[in-house]
Amino acid sequence: MKSDTPSVAWLRCAIKPLDSMAMLAAEDHQKQLTKPAGSLGKLENIAVRLAAMQGVLFPTAANVSIAIFAADHGIAEEGVSMFPQSVTAEMVKNFSHGGAAICVAARFINAPMTVYNLGTISPTEGLANVVNCVIAPQTASFLHYPAMTEGQLALAINIGRKAVLTASEKQLEQEEKLDLFIAGEMGIANTTSATAVASVLLNIAPEKLAGPGTGLDAKGVSHKAAIIAQALQVHEKSLANSSTDPLMALQILGGFEIAALTGAYLTCAQEGMPALVDGFICTVAALVACRINPEVSDWLILSHNSAEPAYALLLESFGAQLPLLNLELRLGEGSGAAIAVPLIRLACSLHHEMSTFEEAAVSSSTVTMPTSEVAQ
Amino acid sequence: MKSDTPSVAWLRCAIKPLDSMAMLAAEDHQKQLTKPAGSLGKLENIAVRLAAMQGVLFPTAANVSIAIFAADHGIAEEGVSMFPQSVTAEMVKNFSHGGAAICVAARFINAPMTVYNLGTISPTEGLANVVNCVIAPQTASFLHYPAMTEGQLALAINIGRKAVLTASEKQLEQEEKLDLFIAGEMGIANTTSATAVASVLLNIAPEKLAGPGTGLDAKGVSHKAAIIAQALQVHEKSLANSSTDPLMALQILGGFEIAALTGAYLTCAQEGMPALVDGFICTVAALVACRINPEVSDWLILSHNSAEPAYALLLESFGAQLPLLNLELRLGEGSGAAIAVPLIRLACSLHHEMSTFEEAAVSSSTVTMPTSEVAQ
Repeated sequence: MKSDTPSVAWLRCAIKPLDSMAMLAAEDHQKQLTKPAGSLGKLENIAVRLAAMQGVLFPTAANVSIAIFAADHGIAEEGVSMFPQSVTAEMVKNFSHGGAAICVAARFINAPMTVYNLGTISPTEGLANVVNCVIAPQTASFLHYPAMTEGQLALAINIGRKAVLTASEKQLEQEEKLDLFIAGEMGIANTTSATAVASVLLNIAPEKLAGPGTGLDAKGVSHKAAIIAQALQVHEKSLANSSTDPLMALQILGGFEIAALTGAYLTCAQEGMPALVDGFICTVAALVACRINPEVSDWLILSHNSAEPAYALLLESFGAQLPLLNLELRLGEGSGAAIAVPLIRLACSLHHEMSTFEEAAVSSSTVTMPTSEVAQ
Repeated sequence: MKSDTPSVAWLRCAIKPLDSMAMLAAEDHQKQLTKPAGSLGKLENIAVRLAAMQGVLFPTAANVSIAIFAADHGIAEEGVSMFPQSVTAEMVKNFSHGGAAICVAARFINAPMTVYNLGTISPTEGLANVVNCVIAPQTASFLHYPAMTEGQLALAINIGRKAVLTASEKQLEQEEKLDLFIAGEMGIANTTSATAVASVLLNIAPEKLAGPGTGLDAKGVSHKAAIIAQALQVHEKSLANSSTDPLMALQILGGFEIAALTGAYLTCAQEGMPALVDGFICTVAALVACRINPEVSDWLILSHNSAEPAYALLLESFGAQLPLLNLELRLGEGSGAAIAVPLIRLACSLHHEMSTFEEAAVSSSTVTMPTSEVAQ
């Protein structure tokens, strides 16, 4: 690295190990609750995983914090989105004023929300709950240039790290521990950027991954795939070692907000903070984080099955883990993750508050039942 | 009908029509909200459907009431369940004492819950929130006899009706309208009973429908299917007209709690009360109700995709409607429906609280986008 590039040496630091004793205790407790074993499906799994992350028998999801990373993309000039690029900054204002979907969901789950503007073509000064940490007005168009310089990439990754540490500190100021971190994103054309990164990391052709994003028709999707394919040709040589250097794909094809997400997920895993992952863009950023260190996935909870078609292919990189919800969401902003929070809280309540067979004097089953549903 | 049989003539009364003007207004409003059209997937659909049911632009799901119908089944003597029959009454006690999954979920969503005991082999006197309306200690084993007499069927159906009307009245006493009704069930061996009813109404062989219920292994599932197949032979003649008389299948193969559920769903649809349908057993009861009057389905919201394998086949009877959740739940008790309530409330909040493009001065898309995701 050049000397004027901020250090991201921390990316290589160890991931906090899960508490396997707490996990076993939670699994055992689930088997004693007054219900057929495994009958609460994914909600049992969530409670057990959170127990392993939080190192307690009875985990909680009371304190949740949301960070949204917003940035503009040079690739938007290729007409790959339904919406004009001005919408990124307009939506930052909408986040600040409380009118976006993520704002409604954040209020519903009583979670504080901070927006990080990493660079939009229109500035967003003086807005409540918006931190301006502008790297550039937008990334370069990756059809012609690397989207980011090495220094810009490092800045963006470090903003993601700072967002997690700040959220955690703010909660500690209230003498409580943050239970769950949600990251969201906003950036016109960022499904194109995320699809390009995924294409390289998964080694799957763009035409098999490109989807409608905010609502492109078939012709629009083809155009998007063609642009990505062309860009992959342009950067072929630089991307040749992406399997061992996932940051290179992120730098060349990603966006400031995607890099921030990657930094955030790695930080969560290092700090032992459960991270609830939103839809397609966030999951691509999570994939980059997992390629940097596969143990990151221990700390990720996939919130929902994005309607973006490439999402299903991404899933294969997350082992046996299935997303909690399948609501055909494709909005981004962290909205799908926030929407999943009530269910995670309910999973914790069920785990904690249900009676055991012994407490309730309910006869247990006459035969030993398989418990594979509970295993991840 | 014999003169000593309670009347169920009300079953043939008209279903309340949906408010199509409110539905159109809600659809139009959704298109103005600051998000790509259709990007909130099933949550948009739920808000629009509730608007049509409640006849308002901005529906609510604040006031929810839960009724659980419990009963024992003669068919249990054939060894079709993992659990001893005593568990039905034991779980009624657990419901009363607040230790069951549905109790935790009911507290979480702040919904009152009433248990109706229609007949358990052990009585459940003197329990808080349990209404004893015992028809018989259990149904007859449908392997040898019709599960119910015509009079018992009518009593059970009318208890379902009364549960809805009582819940609605109790809410009105607080000068508020009930927004959503949830029915649940408890009865050892009731997946066997429900599968038998479904087999007749769907005209699908039991071996293609039978599933593990509370956790049977493959051998147990085969045995369950064989028992049902044998019973269908025994009652072949009586069941010959089930396509025009769905009540006959309910009487011969159903259970008191399943009949109560059918009565409850029909009453909801007649009274204009949205009903949130739980898993497999409840959906079979809803199928009977829809066979009596297909318009009942207008008033049903399917809460979750039950892990019981026959559920997918049931779904085909509910048109384009897809269940909200897919959490691999297979518990019953109404738990899956209660678990869906926070998402329905959030769908209402998003519909009501999000800014429109105009309010937020956000540019809308440059191309007209398909809105088919919103249509049901």
